[in-house]
Parts: sequence; structure tokens; C-alpha cells
Amino acid sequence: MALLVEKTTSGREYKVKDMSQADFGRLEIELAEVEMPGLMACRTEFGPAQPFKGAKITGSLHMTIQTAVLIETLTALGAEVRWCSCNIFSTQDHAAAAIARDSAAVFAWKGETLQEYWWCTERALDWGPDGGPDLIVDDGGDATLLIHEGVKAEEAYEKTGQLPDPASTDNAEFQIVLAIIRDGLKSDPKKYHKMKERLVGVSEETTTGVKRLYQMQANGTLLFPAINVNDSVTKSKFDNLYGCRHSLPDGLMRATDVMIAGKVAVVCGYGDVGKGCASALKQAGARVIVTEIDPICALQALMEGLQVLTLEDVVADADIFVTTTGNKDIIMVSHMRQMKNNAIVCNIGHFDNEIDMLGLETYPGVKRITIKPQTDRWVFPDTKSGIIVLAEGRLMNLGCATGHPSFVMSCSFTNQVIAQLELWKEKATGKYEKKVYVLPKHLDEKVAALHLGKLGARLTNLSKDQADYISVPIEGPYKPPHYRY
Amino acid sequence: MALLVEKTTSGREYKVKDMSQADFGRLEIELAEVEMPGLMACRTEFGPAQPFKGAKITGSLHMTIQTAVLIETLTALGAEVRWCSCNIFSTQDHAAAAIARDSAAVFAWKGETLQEYWWCTERALDWGPDGGPDLIVDDGGDATLLIHEGVKAEEAYEKTGQLPDPASTDNAEFQIVLAIIRDGLKSDPKKYHKMKERLVGVSEETTTGVKRLYQMQANGTLLFPAINVNDSVTKSKFDNLYGCRHSLPDGLMRATDVMIAGKVAVVCGYGDVGKGCASALKQAGARVIVTEIDPICALQALMEGLQVLTLEDVVADADIFVTTTGNKDIIMVSHMRQMKNNAIVCNIGHFDNEIDMLGLETYPGVKRITIKPQTDRWVFPDTKSGIIVLAEGRLMNLGCATGHPSFVMSCSFTNQVIAQLELWKEKATGKYEKKVYVLPKHLDEKVAALHLGKLGARLTNLSKDQADYISVPIEGPYKPPHYRY
Amino acid sequence: MALLVEKTTSGREYKVKDMSQADFGRLEIELAEVEMPGLMACRTEFGPAQPFKGAKITGSLHMTIQTAVLIETLTALGAEVRWCSCNIFSTQDHAAAAIARDSAAVFAWKGETLQEYWWCTERALDWGPDGGPDLIVDDGGDATLLIHEGVKAEEAYEKTGQLPDPASTDNAEFQIVLAIIRDGLKSDPKKYHKMKERLVGVSEETTTGVKRLYQMQANGTLLFPAINVNDSVTKSKFDNLYGCRHSLPDGLMRATDVMIAGKVAVVCGYGDVGKGCASALKQAGARVIVTEIDPICALQALMEGLQVLTLEDVVADADIFVTTTGNKDIIMVSHMRQMKNNAIVCNIGHFDNEIDMLGLETYPGVKRITIKPQTDRWVFPDTKSGIIVLAEGRLMNLGCATGHPSFVMSCSFTNQVIAQLELWKEKATGKYEKKVYVLPKHLDEKVAALHLGKLGARLTNLSKDQADYISVPIEGPYKPPHYRY
Amino acid sequence: MALLVEKTTSGREYKVKDMSQADFGRLEIELAEVEMPGLMACRTEFGPAQPFKGAKITGSLHMTIQTAVLIETLTALGAEVRWCSCNIFSTQDHAAAAIARDSAAVFAWKGETLQEYWWCTERALDWGPDGGPDLIVDDGGDATLLIHEGVKAEEAYEKTGQLPDPASTDNAEFQIVLAIIRDGLKSDPKKYHKMKERLVGVSEETTTGVKRLYQMQANGTLLFPAINVNDSVTKSKFDNLYGCRHSLPDGLMRATDVMIAGKVAVVCGYGDVGKGCASALKQAGARVIVTEIDPICALQALMEGLQVLTLEDVVADADIFVTTTGNKDIIMVSHMRQMKNNAIVCNIGHFDNEIDMLGLETYPGVKRITIKPQTDRWVFPDTKSGIIVLAEGRLMNLGCATGHPSFVMSCSFTNQVIAQLELWKEKATGKYEKKVYVLPKHLDEKVAALHLGKLGARLTNLSKDQADYISVPIEGPYKPPHYRY
Repeated sequence: MALLVEKTTSGREYKVKDMSQADFGRLEIELAEVEMPGLMACRTEFGPAQPFKGAKITGSLHMTIQTAVLIETLTALGAEVRWCSCNIFSTQDHAAAAIARDSAAVFAWKGETLQEYWWCTERALDWGPDGGPDLIVDDGGDATLLIHEGVKAEEAYEKTGQLPDPASTDNAEFQIVLAIIRDGLKSDPKKYHKMKERLVGVSEETTTGVKRLYQMQANGTLLFPAINVNDSVTKSKFDNLYGCRHSLPDGLMRATDVMIAGKVAVVCGYGDVGKGCASALKQAGARVIVTEIDPICALQALMEGLQVLTLEDVVADADIFVTTTGNKDIIMVSHMRQMKNNAIVCNIGHFDNEIDMLGLETYPGVKRITIKPQTDRWVFPDTKSGIIVLAEGRLMNLGCATGHPSFVMSCSFTNQVIAQLELWKEKATGKYEKKVYVLPKHLDEKVAALHLGKLGARLTNLSKDQADYISVPIEGPYKPPHYRY
Repeated sequence: MALLVEKTTSGREYKVKDMSQADFGRLEIELAEVEMPGLMACRTEFGPAQPFKGAKITGSLHMTIQTAVLIETLTALGAEVRWCSCNIFSTQDHAAAAIARDSAAVFAWKGETLQEYWWCTERALDWGPDGGPDLIVDDGGDATLLIHEGVKAEEAYEKTGQLPDPASTDNAEFQIVLAIIRDGLKSDPKKYHKMKERLVGVSEETTTGVKRLYQMQANGTLLFPAINVNDSVTKSKFDNLYGCRHSLPDGLMRATDVMIAGKVAVVCGYGDVGKGCASALKQAGARVIVTEIDPICALQALMEGLQVLTLEDVVADADIFVTTTGNKDIIMVSHMRQMKNNAIVCNIGHFDNEIDMLGLETYPGVKRITIKPQTDRWVFPDTKSGIIVLAEGRLMNLGCATGHPSFVMSCSFTNQVIAQLELWKEKATGKYEKKVYVLPKHLDEKVAALHLGKLGARLTNLSKDQADYISVPIEGPYKPPHYRY
Repeated sequence: MALLVEKTTSGREYKVKDMSQADFGRLEIELAEVEMPGLMACRTEFGPAQPFKGAKITGSLHMTIQTAVLIETLTALGAEVRWCSCNIFSTQDHAAAAIARDSAAVFAWKGETLQEYWWCTERALDWGPDGGPDLIVDDGGDATLLIHEGVKAEEAYEKTGQLPDPASTDNAEFQIVLAIIRDGLKSDPKKYHKMKERLVGVSEETTTGVKRLYQMQANGTLLFPAINVNDSVTKSKFDNLYGCRHSLPDGLMRATDVMIAGKVAVVCGYGDVGKGCASALKQAGARVIVTEIDPICALQALMEGLQVLTLEDVVADADIFVTTTGNKDIIMVSHMRQMKNNAIVCNIGHFDNEIDMLGLETYPGVKRITIKPQTDRWVFPDTKSGIIVLAEGRLMNLGCATGHPSFVMSCSFTNQVIAQLELWKEKATGKYEKKVYVLPKHLDEKVAALHLGKLGARLTNLSKDQADYISVPIEGPYKPPHYRY
Repeated sequence: MALLVEKTTSGREYKVKDMSQADFGRLEIELAEVEMPGLMACRTEFGPAQPFKGAKITGSLHMTIQTAVLIETLTALGAEVRWCSCNIFSTQDHAAAAIARDSAAVFAWKGETLQEYWWCTERALDWGPDGGPDLIVDDGGDATLLIHEGVKAEEAYEKTGQLPDPASTDNAEFQIVLAIIRDGLKSDPKKYHKMKERLVGVSEETTTGVKRLYQMQANGTLLFPAINVNDSVTKSKFDNLYGCRHSLPDGLMRATDVMIAGKVAVVCGYGDVGKGCASALKQAGARVIVTEIDPICALQALMEGLQVLTLEDVVADADIFVTTTGNKDIIMVSHMRQMKNNAIVCNIGHFDNEIDMLGLETYPGVKRITIKPQTDRWVFPDTKSGIIVLAEGRLMNLGCATGHPSFVMSCSFTNQVIAQLELWKEKATGKYEKKVYVLPKHLDEKVAALHLGKLGARLTNLSKDQADYISVPIEGPYKPPHYRY
């Protein structure tokens, strides 16, 4: 696929797989809208006032049907939007086509190369010569990273005249990032500075991106305000947990059709994602073993009847391995070699370095047999035994299935909309410094409240007397900040 | 698709969707073999003796990857095989292609018309002028039905000279059956009599087909011996229950991506299939309501914390409706009109008449919007409210997903192989009369035993003393015939 | 406790622990009545006709609150009743007191010696010189056994003049049985013959008793008709399963207060009782391992995510051991010696020989420390490590808690009432020979139906058309006899 | 029971129900020690250094077997201890007897009047003329309350000469508190001031007490440092959740023997306690309905398949009602009047005012029938319909069963020991001001780690590289402070 930007008849840029899927995408977007009451309520509540009028928003977040509803909520509130995916396999091409045709500039397709991926990211950030976006919706922090690295390189270039050198790293992906920045520098040595200047802030979707942000805050290198959407209760305790509980088995079934009942499944990590995965696997009839570094999470696993062991203890006995850690080097090629024939290995944590894909790909004599896209059998030369790796080690629920379902993404994305609104509203007030913030609890509770009616729930109201007794306002927030849910 | 039989280079007949998918099918068949230890053990145990040498076997059973492993087990034991699917949507085209290319005559593709469906069935039964197959593997009883109706028509024709008249029925499908028989009669008025004469027996896979067989036995019209595979414990208590527990959410997710958690789901019928469905939905976080006619099954549902109500009680409140009854007229168009917008309606019982598809299709002004194949939104003209019907009311786990997973089908199909072996071995002994039989319990236990090793289980052995104490042989069978498991 | 029969002011015989608990028993009986809709419906339906008028019924069945409601249902229908328990620890003394005071002759208390136990059994069977009862309600078959052994001994005595010799067996309990028969023979050498003559039949409650009956039927030694209540669906699939699911954790908690979550529990046997126990333990957060001899039940356990191993594999690692087999010699003293300190060992199967209590009691140097009644810590002399044995190896749910809850016992006992009515109604018709019978399915369905209203359930009714389609009567029965539920 | 202090032969004061139960208590304490690895590890780690040498500790916390192990851990570390219960029904008399005989001054028995309750609290705080304790272990904050109210009264008295007047309040319990303070004032007008002066700090066990502390902190009235043990992860997410999951069904079963399966249960509140209760009831086969004021918790309930309604919606249909809110006026007498006959009403939240006991007791013509201690049937005069109230509306798991099991209390109480150690160690450093603190995360993780070995778990270790990648120390803490688990 040649990396040429295309344009709609109205002149909006895009690059997607197949524009003819736009109708199909539209139909599924319409279904999703019914399942995303929080976003639709935002359109109703805020749409008339057009609060995003004049705002340019760049998003780097899985270009799925659910994201399409998010994008069209942003545009319904007045924003202009450019979008890329934050994962090479997570785009749903019909969603991308519908949005590209109808609503926003999209650069995303399922099965990008890394080179293409970063090209798309750059395209999404490129709003022309006046600098980049006003706001960023980020997931995993790659758009934020590109700007920060760009600014760093421009500063070095200004000082030393030296261009970034891709050969200075042996991380293949970072080489690409540096090459992009280098090429940008040549045409405009202030490109990323201009972006930084313009940027009002970023709202970050997920644990990994948030971790990067807190590191930058700690190092004093964060260039603009950031809202940590991940740690809204209605995000981390909902889509991480209930989303993965849904989408892990979905991905396993679509990719392998394997019977989960009766199998031994290892879940590496028992955070919110791991809890969702372990719960789904247990309920489907697997025997689940958890690996953990954190004694508290380990004890939680034990209280649910799950065994806690090390990967080495069980590597030769298990049928399904799932990484959920957000860390790296969890399942190494040395582990994979010890696994049973046709053991399934997949990642639903964050980056593909949870699984040692490099070690696997470069293992002498290893043979890769693609069963179907995102489902590969890797056969070791000595044992003739194979393992099945999903989505090339990347997020299997997005690569092999369609990610989290609409309803739970409505919770996450309503947080995003509210965070973007907050950043934009306070753009001139100085309320947000170059730090990382979480949304206040009453907004978190509001997100939840917007999702109750769809499920037929009826809340109880506090009396004044009761509210006083437990020292909360009648209308909330109902819990202290440290409450864990 | 023109209904012309094609031939492989070796001269074997077939009609499939796309022969180029044979390689993909072969890869998935190889994966499935690892998950189907019972069938593979049959190949090891019986293969060398070639017990099916000379046997012609016709199968009418969902032409999936799992069935491919069954077919190749039959051929590995010496049989010659012709095959069709027993459902217009259940064929996996890559499985059909691989088998057609490599192993047996296949007439099946996903998305047959009813006309095509019965053409395929007839092709599968047609072994040339010497009569039909020696043995039938049937699912739902359509192959058996065609022979019985054919014989009946031939007898009438012989007596009265009258050909069957499709116009004599207003059941559209039965009109097609009569037309096929009529056309056959013209070319060979003894065609089905010859089939009947040759046939050693049938082994029947499922509840619906078994019910038909017992009715024919009761009426004295059964033309050949039948083994009821459905009521092997390792079939009805396994694939009906655990298979549907797996494949119902699989089908729902692939067809609609709907979040099951938080939804209200109605499961019509709480037999083995209903139990599997209700369990899966509950575990996924739905609130499940059961409808039942049988007070015992109703009380079982209650003991699991499920509400038992009538469809009328809940039709306006639920999000997902699943029929599992094996009966007809469960969800009528009058019910569908009262449902919430985008309520999902699907069937995993047996025939598509569980849902009133005819009523829906002929509802004045109703509009059908196909989201994607097997997923249709039907909009009622007055309310503008739509419901989503899966697989056109046919088995949604086969139409929208890939049916039951390999492991549990290995249990069912190992029963099939053993039943076929038994019929063939006893073909000349008169052991089996024109009646319906179940397999003896020690064979049922054997099927289970063949599946334990794969899951790492270790059985306990009875001592002689213990065996005597409970009055069973050390090697089993361990339970009385009426034991319910 | 001296074994002297006492009499109420009205002259009815009894022997209970403490008559002052009668009021407390009465209050709990009244509560239980609300939870036992099946029995109460029998009183309403049959009470006015007094069908048991003139019938003398002996029961040998755990003398609990629930049994009290059964007894008073029998008396409400006109019967005269004498009762003993079928387990030395299962009597609830307040229930025994209330019944003794108000309704029937009771001989039962919690903590009988074996000597006392058989004395009670004999008392319950002794209706004076005219022979024994007309009907027996039996649980485990001890009342039936006593009559059969008595008749055998009388026949031997008549032929040879030889009295039964307790020293002829080394089974301590059977020595007691022989002694009782011997003493009876001296006073009336036709006592058990007269009983046999008078007896219309027995209805048997449980698996173990039923097994004994089928053995006698097979040997041709059964002396009177028997109805197998255990194998009514509404008995074996209800109280065995749901009853134990309730009463196993209840017994564990009352006896030991142990936290089940996080523990490793071994369930020996995965029949209905084992399924209920494993389910309860898993749900409470234990990791459950099953031992099985039957490959089908083993595969069922695996499908629920339970590990299947041998006792030897796990004896040193588990925290809780539960026997549910109905077999003997399941957990031997050699196993117990290998267990962790304070491992809990208990039986919910049937007899106390599932656990090698004899081996434990006679282990050299073993020390028994009674924590509280029915909860003993046994310390091995060499390791100083102790295990905790519940209810001296007898049924722990009855010994340490209060047995199954009322609602599920209402199902079982409604079957008993119906079986007793059936035997009595047909006493002169010859319908029932000296064989074992199960209740017809429509009565089984009726039992279930009587329990639906209490739980707010609403059944669906078949249309005539639907009933014809699946070939059942509109009013049921709805399933073929072999249906497994 | 006359309120006279007794003395052991060694001269230690006590007041318990029955000293003869000390041996039984000791046996159960020994069993509990094996289940409380965290406390036993504290004895091993800290015992030799006798860190509490010279410390006087008063505890006001349910005097159970588990608390006995806590007390003896404190004494094993060198402390001198006086103890009372924090609930009139929660004392286990054998535990109290064993501790009184062997280890500490105990003033507690099951079934105290409110008068007796506060007498016990005052006794536990009275260390003689030199002031009160150095440290307090509090649960619900009653010991802390008494001191704060005492100081307030003494200040008023000093200023105005006015004694506190019980008649100034219509809260019956607070009248008692004021009377005690008044009587104390007469003998020593500086009694509570001296206590306040001496006190190093309090560690508070539970949500309710913590809420009071934060209110006092906010009002500036907190008189000494407080450590909030409740909000350690290993407390609130463990004993609140897993403890109640265990002890709610335990209490229900012991009190009523009711079959939970099939019933409709209403859980008021879906915090940690409510989550544990709802999970237990659902798993036992009930249909669970949740009431909530907080939309986030409500949405969590929905995601688990629980219905969320108001109490008014379901009051007439449910069988079991459980309050878990920590608020008041949850179930009023007007609700109770609408309930089904024999509906069960109980509280596992905190105070007995969650249920309108006053309204019930004073309802005209209501009749109370005590089935057994802590289980009362209240019959309304008009309907003749009764409801069953457990533990007089107080904590039913402590009143009707034995509270949380040892293992989970080991987590909570290890936090208590660590908190007490921390307060005592820093008594002179000024580290802790008159504020509320939570324990640092590494101590929380340590508590968890101490409980893993008992359950056979094996933790995974981070590599240096991995630790750097996620920016945590190799040895933890592993999570940011806001992490919710």
C-alpha cells in the first residue's frame, strides 16, 4: 500500500483500506450508538452549545466502531478531528472507511507495518503549517511520545546542528520514530515546537500511557497538561476488567475455536485486565493459574480459587497463556520452547514486548505457518512441536476480535469526552499545569449514571438525614478519593 | 450457483464454494486433530484392521472442520464417504474444500438455498444405480426422512400410479422434498426401495432426529435399524451442554459484538442446550430469565438463581432472546413487535421454526437491513424499532460462529464412529432390528476415557473389594442405566 | 442413657434426649412448614380423605425438623407413625421432642451409640404382637435390613434350632444386629415373619439403600415391594446436589470456622453429591480437585475447570478432604498420616467407612482431642501433626450442621408421601410385586410443580399444536424415561 | 449479671460469661493460630525484641477467637492488654474465657445490655489513676468516642461546673454514655484528660470508625494520631469482601437453616461488604437484587448480572434482606410490614440502625417470638404475617455465627499489629500528628506476602530490567497510591 494521502470529495484527507466498506461501517456504527448511552447523552447535553467549536483534535486510539462513535461525538460537539490507530492490527476497516467518508480525517488500516503506523501517526498530528492539534486523545502515548521526541530532537538540532540518528538505537521501532523526526526536521526545524506551543493538553486512555506521563511529570519533561482518563473508576475498573472479560474469550474463539473448558490457562498478571481475563477463563471452564509479582494481587487471586505459581512452574503443562502485565519480557522464547504442542500464546496487556516476539522470530530454524491472519503456528525445528501465537504478540482482542464491546467503551469514551471538554474549557485559565490530573469524582459518578438507564437500573436516593449521617452531599460524590470500589 | 456436480482429478464428485480454500481447511483440520483425541484414538486402535473396508457411508451433518476430522476417521478405517450438511448455513467452506479435495465426496456450502440444500442431500445419498449407502450418519434426520418419504411415494406410485404433488402441502421446504422425490421417481421408481434394502442402519446425532426416529419406531414405520447417538451421556450431556456454553456467546459476539454483561437475556427452554446457554450468559454477566414448560427443568433453573417466567412477562424488557427448545412457534412475530429496539433474537435449538421467521418476513411493511451475512436488522414500519435476527432463525452458533469446538465434538463423533462400527460389524447377525438403540454404557465410558489424557486427568482405580462393595466390575460400567449424571 | 421406653400422657411411647426442647422444636417446625410447600400441598390435597386411615408407618430416617414436617404430613393423612433416625448423629433433639410430644412415637437422639441405634430401630418397628408396620419409610435400608436378617435367622432357627451368633462376624455393628435378632427370637420366633407378612412395602430414600434393594431383587431375596424414591429426579438431582451444595459448607463452617477461600479441597467422587460439594467449594473460593473412578463423571469435572487426580497425588497438599462416594475405604489412615497439619477430613457420602475411622482409632499412639462435639483433632505420635475429623466420619452435614435445608427436603419428602400413598392404595391390587419400582414421571413432575409457586416461577403452557409437534401430552410428562436432566 | 470485676489468681481483672469455657477457647485459639500466618509471623519476627515492652494497650473489638490470637500477639510482643468487645452480641464466650485466664484483662460476653456494653468499654480503658492506655485498637470508634466525649464534658465541667445530662438526648445509647462520663467526672474530673495526654494513638479497624475519625480531623477535634487500618488494601478489600462472602451465608444458615438457592435476596449497598454478600448469595443460587445510591457501584452490580432497583420496588417479593450500607434507616418498619411471611431481615453493615429496630419494637401490637437466641420472628397484628430478624438488627455474622474466619482476619489484624508498632515506635518523634494516616503501601504488601505461603502460592520476581521498565523498585511497592486493586 503506497503511502499516499487520499481525499474525499469534500477535500478531507484520509488513508484507509477500502472505502467501499463505509456503508457496512455506518450500519455497525448505528448499532453501536444504541449501546453507547454515555456518548449519546453527551451529544444531547453538549451538542447544542458546540463547545468544541474551533478545536482541532488529534486522536491516536484503536480505530474501531466504538471509536467511530467517539469521533462523531467530538465532531457533534463542534470539533475538527484527525485520527490514527494506536496499534497496527486494531483498526476495523469498515469503521475507518465510514469515518473517513463522513466525519474526520482517518489514517488507519488493519495490518499496518510499523513504518506505516508511524506515518499514520504523523499524518494525524499534521494540521498544516500552523502547528498541530489543540487537543490530543491518546492511547498508549505514541502521539505524545512523537511530540516529546520531536521537541527533544529539535532542541538538540538547534544546539548542535545534529539530526537524530536512527542507527543510534537497536530498537527497530524507535529507529522509525527517529527517521520520521529527522525527515521532519529537514523541512521544518520548529515543527514539534509549534505543536507543543499550540497544544492545550492530552487525555490519555490507558495504563501504559499514563505510566509514561507520570514518569515525564516526575522527570519534569512533560510539555503540556494531561488528564489521566485511565484511572477514572469508570474506565480502569470497567473497560480493563469487564471489557477484557468479554474480549479475551472472543479473541480466543475467533482465532482458534479452541474449547476453553477443561484447559489449563495461565494468566500473567492479576491487575484489572488480568482479573477480567482470569474470570472469563474460569467461567468458561478452564483451570486458571496466575503469575504475579505483587503479593496483594496474588492474594486476591488465591481468594478466588486461582492457583498462583511462576511461569516456570507451569510452562510445560498449560494450554493457553495470556499476558496482561504492561511489563516486558514476560513469556520468552525459552518458555515457548518448553510448551505443549499447539499451546496458545497471546497478549492482552499492552505492547507486543510482553511476549518475546523477537526471540521467536529469530530462533534458528523456527518455521511460521499462518493459519489465518493474526493466527500463526510457530514450529520449533528440533521438537517439531508448535505453538500458536495470536496477533503477532500484539493486543489479541483487537487483532483477533473487535476489541471491547460498545457498552463498556461508552464508559471509557464518555470520560474522554469529558476530559477533552474540561481541558478545552480551561485552556486559558491556567487551571491545568504541565502535570497529570485525574477527573474529579463527581464526573466519574456522572459517567456511571449515564449508563444505568440502558440497563434498567433504578438508583436509591439519600435522604438529607442519611446524607448528613455519612457526611456526603445528597447528590454525591459519595466516596472519599481513596475509595477502591 | 449452478447445481452441477464437479469432479476432482481423481474423479471424485463434489460441489463446494471455493476449492482454493482447501489449504486453509487442511491447516485447521490439523489443529482440530490435536483437540480431538477420541477420533484420533479410533484411528490408532481400529485403523490397521480397516473395519469399514467396502462400506459406503453417507453423512448429513454440518460440514465443519470437526466433521472433517470425523470423515477422515471414517475413511482412515476403510470407508468410502459422501457428505452433505444438515443446515444451510453451517458449512465451513474451507473444511468442505479440504475434504472434497482430499478425502470424500462433499456437497455443501455456507448459504445454500433450501432448493440447493435438498439437492445436496440427494447427491450425498446417490451412490449410483446399485442403491444408496450402507450406512448413514444423520443429524436432524433429513437423510433418513428423504428415504422414508421416497419409499412411501414409491409405494403409492406403485399402487396408484400417482406421483407426489408438491402442491399438496403449504410447507415450502416439504414441497421441495416432494419435487425431488417426484423427479427421482420418473427416472427410477425403485430408487428409494433399493436404498432401503441396502441400508444397514443409521446413527443419529441430535435430539430432533432421535425424536423422529422414536416416532417412526412407535408407528412401526422405521425402515432400518438406528442408533441414537444423541442419548449417549458423552453426547447429550457434553456437546449439548458444554458445546452450547461455548458457542452461544461465540455466535453472539461474532454477529453483534454486543456486551453481554448487564443485559437481560431470555433463554427459552432449560434442557441440556438451554442449561449451557443460560450458564454462559449468566457467567458473562447477564441477568438470565428462563421460560419452561417442564416443572422439573424449571425448578432446576430456579436452583441456579435464574428467574422462571413466561415470554409474555418479559418480552418488552429483555435484550437477548435465545430459543433452545426443539419445539416450534416459541418466539412469534407478535412477540418481536413488542421487543426493545435492537433486541437480539436467535435460535440454538434445532429448526428455524422456533422463531416465527415466516411471520416476520411477511409482516406488512417490515424492512430487512442486512448488517452482515447472518446478521439482519428487521425494522417494523409503525414503531421504527428494529430487532436483530441471527442466522435467519437457524442455528446461530453454526451460522454466525463455527459451531461447537473440536474437543467436545470429539466426544460426540467418537460415539458416531463407534455406532457406525457396531452397525457394520453386526450387519449380518440380526442383532439390530428396525428399532432405535442407544450405545451400551461401557462404550459411553470408553468415549469419555479417551478424552481424559488430553486434559491431564488421572483416574482412580477401584480395588476388587471396593468394586464388590458397590457391585460393579472393576473396569466398569460404573453406573446403572438410569443414572442421570 | 438407660434404654427405657417412656410414655406421653396420652400413652404414646418415645425415647428422646430432652422433652423440654419440644417448644423450640415446634417453632422451627412451623418455620420449616413455610419452606416445604410440597408437603403442605399434600396435606391440603389429601388430608380431607384421610387416605392413610388405619395405616401403621415406621420410619428410619434422620429425625430432623424437616422429617418432623414429613411425619406430621403422614399423620395429617391419617397414619399412625413410629420413627427412629438412620444415623447416630443426625437427630435434632428439639425436633424429636416436638414430634414425640405431639405426633408420633419417636426413638432418636443425637449421639446414639451403635447399641442404642439398633435398639431405636427395633423399637420403631415394634407395633406389638400383631406384627410390624404396614409401611416403611427407609433411608439407607437399616429397617429393611433388620427385617430381612430377622426372617433369615428365624428360618435358620426353624430348620436347625440354631440362634444367630454375634461372634460369627467381626463387624462390630453387625454383631449388634445379630444380638438383637437373637434376643427377639427367644421371645417370639415368628416376630420378623409376622412383620414380613404384614408389610405392604417400603419406600427408600437414598442411593445406598436403593443399591441394597436392587441387590436383593437380583438375588431374589427381596421380601416385599419397594419404591426407589432416590431415583426420582426431584430427589437425586435435587437434594443430593442442591442439598449438599448448601449443607457441606454449612457443616464445615459450624464445625471449624475455616476460611474456604484460598484452600485446596479434594472431593472424592463426582456423582450428584460430589457435584454439589465441588460446586459449593469452588464458589466459596477454594481450588477443588476431584478424584473419580468413572471416566464420564471425571470428564464432567474437567469441563467445570476442576482438576482430576488421584488421592495419592494430592494428599500432602490439600486442606480439606470430602468423601462423597457411597463406597468404602476412600481415605485410609495411611493417607491421613501424610496430610498437612490441621487438614480437615469429612464424609458426606453415606456410611462412615468411606473414611478409615477404625484405622485411625487404632493407630498406635494416636491422640484424640475433642475440640467440640463432632469436631475432633487426631494427632499422630511421630509427626505431632494433627488432622481434624468431623462427625467421627459419619455424615458431616447432619452431624455438624442441620442437614439439608427444608425446601429441598420438601422435594424429597413429597416423593416419599406420594410413594407411601401409592403403595397403600395398591396394597390389595397386586400392582406392586416384590420388586423395586421408581415413581412414574408425571408424579415426579408433580413434585416439582408443587415447589414452583413458592419461588415465584411461572410455567409456560404448551399449545396443542406444539405438544403434538414434540409428541407429548399438553399436561406432561414432557420427557422420555431415559432423559437425564 | 452483676457488674462486678473479678480477678484471676494472678490478680488480673476480668468479667466474662463462663470461665469454665477457657479450655475449649484455648483449643480453638490453637486451631486459629494455624490459620493466621500473618500474626504468627509477627510473633516470630518481632517477639524476640519485645517492642511493646511497657506499652498498655486497650482494645475495643469483637472478642472472638481471632481477636484472641491478635491479643496474644500483642502480649507476645511485650504489651499489657485490656479488652472489651465493640458489639453486644459478638463476643465468643470461650475466647473471652481463655484470654481472661491466660493473657489479658477481658470485659466481654455475648448478649450484653447496652448498659453493660459501656461499662465494659470503660473498664477496658481504665488502667488506674495514671491515665488510660498508651494505645487503642478500636473498631467502630466507641473507645475513641468515649474519650472524646469525656474530654468534652470535662472541659464543659471545668468551665461551667455543669455535669453532662443524659436527659439532654433521646438517643438511648448516648444517654448511657453521658451517664458513665457524668459518674466518672464526679470521682475524677480529669480522668479523660489524663487519658488523652497519655495516649500515643489509635488504630481503627472499620469503615464506620474511620469515617468518624476523618470527621473529627476535618473539624479539628481529633485528640490524638490515628491510623486508618480499614483502608489498607489487605483490610478493606479482604475482610470486608471475602470475610462477608464467608460469614453472611454462615450466619443465615446457623440462624435460619434457610435454603438460599431459589430465593430472591436484596442486598442494600454494594460496597466491599455488599459485594461480598451479593457474591455469596448469587453463588448459593439466590437471585440477587441490589439497592445503591452510588451510580458507580450500581454499574458494577449490573456488570455482575445483578438487578439494581429500589427497596420499594422489591420489598414485597424478596425472601432475604441484607443491609450493608454503614448508613441508617435503610429498612424501616413500613418496609417490614410489606414483606412476605417469614422474610429474613438482617444487617452486616455496621450499627443496628440500618434496620429500624426501634420502629419495629414499638409497632403497636407487634409480637416477638424468639425462635432461638438472635433469631426472632416478629408478627404484625393485622396481617398475622411475620418477619425473621437476626441478631436484633446488629451484625448478624457475629451475632448468629462466629464472624469472619481466621485467615482473612489474620490479614486485618496483621495490619493492626503493624499499625500499633508504628505508633509506638514513633511515639516520641512527632512523625504522627493529630491526624488520620493510612499505612504505607510496602507494609500493606508485606501483610499480603505473609499470607501467601500458607496457600501454597509462589510469587514471580521482577528482573532489574523489568522493574526499571515499569519504574518500580524490584522489592516493591508495585503500585501507585491511587491503585484500586
